Amino acid sequence: MPWSKKLNIEIILRIIGILLMIEGFFLLTALPFSIYYSEDPFGWALLDGVHDFWPLLLSALFTSLIGIFLYFAAGKDVKKNLGKREGYIIVSIAWIVISVFGAIPFVLSGSVTSYTDAFFETISGFTTTGASILNNIEGVPKGLLFWRSMTHWIGGMGIIVLSLAILPFLGIGGMQLFIAEVPGPTPDKLHPRITATAKRLWGIYVMLTIVETGLLMLGGMNLFDGLCHAFGTMATGGFSTRNTSIAGFSPYIQYVITVFMILAGTNFTLHYLALHGKFKDIRKNEEFKYFIFIILVATLIITVSLIVIDQMHPETAFRDSIFTVVSIITTTGFVTADYLFWPGALWFIIFGLMFVGGSAGSTGGGIKVVRHLLLFKNSLLEFKRQVHPQAVLPVRMSGKPVSQDIIFNVLAFFLIYFIIFAIGTFVMSLMGLDFETAIGTTIATLGNIGPGIGHVGPVDNYSAIPAIGKWFLSFLMLLGRLELFTVLILFSPAFWKR
Amino acid sequence: MPWSKKLNIEIILRIIGILLMIEGFFLLTALPFSIYYSEDPFGWALLDGVHDFWPLLLSALFTSLIGIFLYFAAGKDVKKNLGKREGYIIVSIAWIVISVFGAIPFVLSGSVTSYTDAFFETISGFTTTGASILNNIEGVPKGLLFWRSMTHWIGGMGIIVLSLAILPFLGIGGMQLFIAEVPGPTPDKLHPRITATAKRLWGIYVMLTIVETGLLMLGGMNLFDGLCHAFGTMATGGFSTRNTSIAGFSPYIQYVITVFMILAGTNFTLHYLALHGKFKDIRKNEEFKYFIFIILVATLIITVSLIVIDQMHPETAFRDSIFTVVSIITTTGFVTADYLFWPGALWFIIFGLMFVGGSAGSTGGGIKVVRHLLLFKNSLLEFKRQVHPQAVLPVRMSGKPVSQDIIFNVLAFFLIYFIIFAIGTFVMSLMGLDFETAIGTTIATLGNIGPGIGHVGPVDNYSAIPAIGKWFLSFLMLLGRLELFTVLILFSPAFWKR
Repeated sequence: MPWSKKLNIEIILRIIGILLMIEGFFLLTALPFSIYYSEDPFGWALLDGVHDFWPLLLSALFTSLIGIFLYFAAGKDVKKNLGKREGYIIVSIAWIVISVFGAIPFVLSGSVTSYTDAFFETISGFTTTGASILNNIEGVPKGLLFWRSMTHWIGGMGIIVLSLAILPFLGIGGMQLFIAEVPGPTPDKLHPRITATAKRLWGIYVMLTIVETGLLMLGGMNLFDGLCHAFGTMATGGFSTRNTSIAGFSPYIQYVITVFMILAGTNFTLHYLALHGKFKDIRKNEEFKYFIFIILVATLIITVSLIVIDQMHPETAFRDSIFTVVSIITTTGFVTADYLFWPGALWFIIFGLMFVGGSAGSTGGGIKVVRHLLLFKNSLLEFKRQVHPQAVLPVRMSGKPVSQDIIFNVLAFFLIYFIIFAIGTFVMSLMGLDFETAIGTTIATLGNIGPGIGHVGPVDNYSAIPAIGKWFLSFLMLLGRLELFTVLILFSPAFWKR
Repeated sequence: MPWSKKLNIEIILRIIGILLMIEGFFLLTALPFSIYYSEDPFGWALLDGVHDFWPLLLSALFTSLIGIFLYFAAGKDVKKNLGKREGYIIVSIAWIVISVFGAIPFVLSGSVTSYTDAFFETISGFTTTGASILNNIEGVPKGLLFWRSMTHWIGGMGIIVLSLAILPFLGIGGMQLFIAEVPGPTPDKLHPRITATAKRLWGIYVMLTIVETGLLMLGGMNLFDGLCHAFGTMATGGFSTRNTSIAGFSPYIQYVITVFMILAGTNFTLHYLALHGKFKDIRKNEEFKYFIFIILVATLIITVSLIVIDQMHPETAFRDSIFTVVSIITTTGFVTADYLFWPGALWFIIFGLMFVGGSAGSTGGGIKVVRHLLLFKNSLLEFKRQVHPQAVLPVRMSGKPVSQDIIFNVLAFFLIYFIIFAIGTFVMSLMGLDFETAIGTTIATLGNIGPGIGHVGPVDNYSAIPAIGKWFLSFLMLLGRLELFTVLILFSPAFWKR
C-alpha cells in the first residue's frame, strides 16, 4: 500500500459515512425483537418506564442521516487512492465513531442513565470485550439487548477483515505472517483482493453463527437467546442476555458454546482450508497446535485440582474448567464459574491465560498465541546464539523461516503491551482502585476479555468504576482490539510528517 | 573467549578452591568485632546463649580447609585454558558454594535455627539482595552481623568484576556494550585485561567504601555501624545493623547514604573516568543521564504528593522520597519510610522502580536502566520503521549505533525476565501467599532489592515464608544477580553438547 503524500480526507469522510449508514441498517435489525417482546411496543420511553422501539428507530435514522451527510460532505470527485495513512486513520476512527452513535439508543431509552456508561457498553461491544456496566441485564428491553449483542457481531466481522485483509497490508504487528493462506484472485491488486478475502471470511463467519444458533435452539434456547449468544460466541465478545451469563444454561449448551468459542478463537483461514478439505495444511499450522495444547494442559490441571481439592463431580469439574479456560484464552468472557474462588492458585492459571489471547486471524483479542510462540522460539534460540555466536539461526514457524523484521515487530509489540498494562494499572490505582482490581480492569479491557480479577471478577461488573476510568478503559479496549500500533502510530510525529 | 571442546573440570575445582580460601580469610575479619563486642568472647555458643567467636573461627577454618582440599584435588598439572563454558559454570557455582559455606556460622552460633534460613540470609547477602529472615537483628552478635554485611561487600566486589570484566567476554545480556570505556593494557589478551580492569575497579570500590565509612562516622556512627552500612550501600545490598534499618539515623546520615547509593548504582567505569577528569565522556553517557532523570522525576512526584496530601514537612517529604526512590531503583533496599502506607498510588511508582534497576556495570541489580533505554528506543523506532519500511534505522546509544545482536539479546532478556517473574509469582501463590505478597517476594528477590510489596514490605521480613519458598527465592536471587543467561544457559542442551 502506498504512503500518500497529501492526506486524502475526502475518502476518510466517505468511508466513515458508509460505515454509519451500515450501522443505521443494523440498528433496524433489533426492531422485530423490540416489537415481539414488548406489550406496548410503540409506547414512548421518556413518558412511562423503559421502552426501546422508538429509541432504536430514532437512533437508526439519526445515524444513517449523519452517514449520508458525511458521504456527501466528502464532495463530488473523491479520489479513490487509499494510502496506508488513510488506512490507519479510518480504522481507528471508525471504531470510535460507530461506538459514539451505537450508544445513543441505550441513553434514549433510559436503560442506561449516563452517556459514559452507554459509550462504555457500546465500545465494549464493538471491540468484542464484553465488559458490562449493567447491574440487571434481564431488566433491559429485549430489542436493546439484541442490539448490544449485535455490536459484538459487527465488531467480530470487522476484526476478521481487519486482521486478515487490511492490517497485513498496513504492516501492523507482524500480521503479514498470517495472510499467505487464502489466495485472492489477483494478488497484486489490493482492492479486489481485500474484497474477495473479506467475502470468503464473512461467509464462514455467518455460516458458523447460523450453525451455532441452530445448535443452541436444539438445546432449548429461543431464537432471541440463540442469536444473542451465538453473536457473543463467534465474536469472542461475552455479552449474555442473562444476569448469570451461561451458568444457568444446560451442560449441553455450555459444551456447544465451548466448541464454538474454540472455533471463533481459531485463525479463520483454517476454517477456509477445512472447508476445502486441506487438512494437511491445518496440521502444519503451529499456532493452532499450541492453541489447542495450551487449552488441554490448563483444562487438565484445573479439572484434576477441582476434583481432588474441591471434591467436585468429575463432569462438572471438567465442564467448568474447559469452559473457563476457553472463555478466557479466546478472550470471550462468558462465565459458568467464579474462578476467583477456585482453590489454591488455580485462578492464577486463568490470570496467565488473560495474557495469551486467541489465534491471529480469529475474532479473539489479546496478545495472540503466535506472538508468544515467536517470542518463545526466539528466546530459546538466544541460548544457542550465545553458544554459537557465528551461526545464523532464524526463527522458524510452521516450517518456514520468519524474517527478523517480524520478530522485531513482535518484540516491540510485547514491550508496548506491557508498558501500557503497567501504565493502565497505575492510572486505575490513581482512581482509588485496589491493586488487584486495577490489574484486573486493565488486562480485561486491554485484552478484550471482559471479566478480570479483583472487583471486576466473573460475577461482578464495571458499574462502580469512576466515569473517567470508564473512558480510559474504553481507550484500552480500542488499543487492544486494533493491535496497539494502529492507534498509537497516530500519535507518532513521523506519521504526520509529509 | 574460546569454546573448549572438553570441559576443563580441574580448573573449575581449582578456582572454586581459591574462592573458598578467600572466603575463609574474609570470615576471619569478623573476629575483631566479635571479641570487641562480647563480654565473654571465647564462651561456647551451644552451651549458654548466643556467641559468635568460635562459630566464626571454626567456619573460617572449615571453609579454608575445604578450599585447600579442592585446590589440590584438581591435580598437579591443571591446564590454564579457561573457556566460555568453564566461565559460565564457575560463575554460577561460585555464588552457590560460597553461600553454602557462608551460612555455617549463623547455624553454629544458634542465631539462626534452621540451615534453610541461614542459607537464605547468606545468599541474600552475597547476591546483594538484602532480604532478611531475622526478626530481631539487634539481638544477633556483632561479629555475625559484620559477617552478614561483609557478604554484601564481597558480593558487590564480585559483581563489579563480573559485569565489567567477565560477562562481556561470555557475551551475556548485551553486556559487551559497557566495556569499551576502560581500556586494559592488552585488549587482545584476555587474562591480563581482566586482572587490570578488576584491580582498577576494586580500587574505586574500596576507596568509595572508606570515604562513606568516614562520612558516616563523622555523623556519629561507630566504626562497626559505619563499615556495615558502607558495605550495605556500596554493594547496593541493604542489610542494616538495626531493626528499623536507616529510619532511626539522623537526616545527615540518610543523605550520605542516599548519595553513596547513587554512586553505587552508577556504572563504575564512570567513576574511573571521573577520577581521570574525563567529564566530557561522562556527560555523553546516556544511561547515567536517564538514571538520574528517573530518580529526579520520581522524587519530585512523591515529594510534592507527600507535602500536599499528607501535609508532611517539606524537608522530611523530600528526604523520605529521594531516599526511598534511590534505595529501590539501585536495588539497595535500605528503609526510612514505609512506602506501602503512602497515599494514593505513590507506592505504585516504587513498585515500578523495582523493575528498573541500577546501571549496568554498577553493583545494582534488576533489569538495568540501559536495557530499558535500548528497548524503549527500539520500540519508538518501530513506529518509524512502519512508516518507512525500506529505511535501515539502527538504535543509537550515547551516539553510537547498537548492533542488532545486542538488541535481540536485550529483548530476549526482558521476555525471560518477565516469564520468570510470572512463574515466580505463580509458584509463590501455590505456597499459599496472597497475590501481592507473591508478586512482592518474586520481584524483590529476582531484582535483588530486598523489601517488596504485600507482606514483605519495607517493615517486614521473610521469616514467615515456607522453607521450600525460601529455597526457590534463593534461586531467583541467583538468577537475577547473574543476569539470567549465565545460570539458565547451564540448563540448555546446546551448552552440554560437544
